[in-house]
Amino acid sequence: MLQELTLKGFTKKLGSKAPMPGGGSAAALSASVSASLVEMVTNLTVGKKKYKEVEQEMEEIRNIAENMRNKFLNDIDRDSDSYEGVTIAFKLPKDTEEEKNIRKEKIQKELKNAALVPLEIAKDAYKILDLAEKVVLKGNQNAVTDGLVATMLSRTAVLSALYNVKINLISIKDEEFVKKITFEMDELSDVNERENKILGMVEL
Amino acid sequence: MLQELTLKGFTKKLGSKAPMPGGGSAAALSASVSASLVEMVTNLTVGKKKYKEVEQEMEEIRNIAENMRNKFLNDIDRDSDSYEGVTIAFKLPKDTEEEKNIRKEKIQKELKNAALVPLEIAKDAYKILDLAEKVVLKGNQNAVTDGLVATMLSRTAVLSALYNVKINLISIKDEEFVKKITFEMDELSDVNERENKILGMVEL
Repeated sequence: MLQELTLKGFTKKLGSKAPMPGGGSAAALSASVSASLVEMVTNLTVGKKKYKEVEQEMEEIRNIAENMRNKFLNDIDRDSDSYEGVTIAFKLPKDTEEEKNIRKEKIQKELKNAALVPLEIAKDAYKILDLAEKVVLKGNQNAVTDGLVATMLSRTAVLSALYNVKINLISIKDEEFVKKITFEMDELSDVNERENKILGMVEL
Repeated sequence: MLQELTLKGFTKKLGSKAPMPGGGSAAALSASVSASLVEMVTNLTVGKKKYKEVEQEMEEIRNIAENMRNKFLNDIDRDSDSYEGVTIAFKLPKDTEEEKNIRKEKIQKELKNAALVPLEIAKDAYKILDLAEKVVLKGNQNAVTDGLVATMLSRTAVLSALYNVKINLISIKDEEFVKKITFEMDELSDVNERENKILGMVEL
């Protein structure tokens, strides 16, 4: 599993000639790092007298962020695997009409999967913005910049994952599917405004 | 060294109660991942007939990106260590006047270092934007989204590192130093426009 590679080993593999892992996995890692920073701010808040009032809320955020950190680590592999599925389908034999049809169908199936995985990453990364906003506003103010960094990493994860959805949608023939996914992408389209709003809450 | 931790181990440590590593190290990792993606696009370009004309340029970019990938991995530790230096200085004894003076001086020295390290990360991450722009424009177009993801990761690294500079500048008394650093930060202030320009080069 990619999450078992060292930072050194993972970035080396990412930089290599192999197309996998690629930008989608980088998006998932970015989201995992974002969730970690949110988690750290809650950990620096819980147990402090000054933040007694928000303790329960911070504990709840901590649990969600911890789960997301691990979820996104798995997504690093899931995205890489989904892309690999497409490349394998393209290599299927195409000598007979039957083979051609099987190959075509398989490619379409794998392309859909390779769009759905980063779409899920984008949606989940978008959710971290809510958590980041809360820790920036209510968490330990000594760690406020960590919440801001988390915000930018989530925004980057959302947009990066969406690029990976779009690039796959181009080759998908099922118009209903494309329409549905496009609609779901549109629901995340205010991610830049969301980021700006959170960054604007802190004067530095 | 932090770069020897697994992705799983690093994100867990980042999310923990310990204030180090924090947002500055996350910025360095983000920059390293960005450099890796630039490197990957060059690797997917070099040796392809279609991109024969840009082969030499891509090889040059590959070498720079590879060096930067490793440089930023070291910065993950450097940033964490520089912040630790500040926390250690704050724990120095302050019982006598002499101790107070020594402590004050040491804190100022460590704060300066903790501003200079992320400033260097920000400047170097800013340079990746040039490389990302080139691979997006001239590199293998099948990997164009990887160049766009690299662009957003660099932008996030620059702004994240700058937050870590600013938070340390607040407590630095040396006005000349603050002025100089502020001037150098201003030179990176068009990073959002730079990002927008590169993203705008590709229609998806």
